[in-house]
Amino acid sequence: MEYSSKLIEEAVNEIARLPGIGKKTALRLALHLLRQPESQTEALSESLLNLRNKIRYCTVCQNISDDELCRICSSTRRDRSIICLVEDTRDVLAIENTSQFNGLYHVLGGVISPIEGIGPSDLHIDALVSRLEDHKGEVNEVILALSPTMEGDTTAFYLMKRLKPFGLKISTIARGIPIGGELEYADEITLGRSIQTRTLYQQD
Amino acid sequence: MEYSSKLIEEAVNEIARLPGIGKKTALRLALHLLRQPESQTEALSESLLNLRNKIRYCTVCQNISDDELCRICSSTRRDRSIICLVEDTRDVLAIENTSQFNGLYHVLGGVISPIEGIGPSDLHIDALVSRLEDHKGEVNEVILALSPTMEGDTTAFYLMKRLKPFGLKISTIARGIPIGGELEYADEITLGRSIQTRTLYQQD
Repeated sequence: MEYSSKLIEEAVNEIARLPGIGKKTALRLALHLLRQPESQTEALSESLLNLRNKIRYCTVCQNISDDELCRICSSTRRDRSIICLVEDTRDVLAIENTSQFNGLYHVLGGVISPIEGIGPSDLHIDALVSRLEDHKGEVNEVILALSPTMEGDTTAFYLMKRLKPFGLKISTIARGIPIGGELEYADEITLGRSIQTRTLYQQD
Repeated sequence: MEYSSKLIEEAVNEIARLPGIGKKTALRLALHLLRQPESQTEALSESLLNLRNKIRYCTVCQNISDDELCRICSSTRRDRSIICLVEDTRDVLAIENTSQFNGLYHVLGGVISPIEGIGPSDLHIDALVSRLEDHKGEVNEVILALSPTMEGDTTAFYLMKRLKPFGLKISTIARGIPIGGELEYADEITLGRSIQTRTLYQQD
């Protein structure tokens, strides 16, 4: 497509690099911004730059954070005896949204996937083990809230072995979520109930 | 939804102000940017700011432009005897994409719509009339490439009356485009053919 303006061409190309956004949608968004006050584009650009440049990762749970400790880890109202293991930040948000969990989280940063070349050392598993060693006696349950896919199951199996020495109660969220589905797209009620009816993790 | 970071919350809120993008998609886009190099977010922000702050409108055709004259109006290879009237920039791009038109454009900036309170004075129609007066003898055909909606028809009818004194050939793109459809979503072949088989505009 040939644009009458290099400025619009560059903006469209940059917007279209985002996942799920093609050139036509990018053009529609760019033209929309042109019709809005300048302040909106400025606020958008600034918030993206701020996010990218200032974001940090919580030194305890590895969730995205504004400070050294995230809002959840630094809260005094959370139950520190229970840690919920999730793949990424979106899963933390999804579970927080259900209001069914008041413990802490640990963000693994993905799941073990030999096909994509992601092994245990690419995830924040060592950080979890150190965390459990540092807080021995304080933590007594770990919930595996991983997506019910083959990679999620592999990761759960691996974690089970690594966490065994700590003698903790290890549970998984109930399989109310359809097999093969993504955790973040589950509805709140299903996801909330699956936290409540979590079952002991059985290694067979 | 409660976010663990104010930075992500602000970014999600700003992204979700764009049309057709909800909070979940906004979060997905924000987290995507976090996984990419900083340079991508910087390029995106810069291109949006550049677009919004530096964009100009061609003083001749009112299309968006980087300079006083747009690329098309300043080209020496375009046929200056024929002007295609369109609603907005996206229509220019759609027609350019067909490679079936080598004349100039005039962007009206919308169509007459009494319901939305848009009258002829809100469109670049006076600018068109001045343009035709300035280039008397040079222009001999005007194509009305408006969406085949009631508003488009009303606008075409009004333009027909305003342009009559100039004694130009006035044509409309062929109605191969489905009635009620939007010009910008037409496929290239239909749109291209509708330019080739344009018919004389009949005022009945």
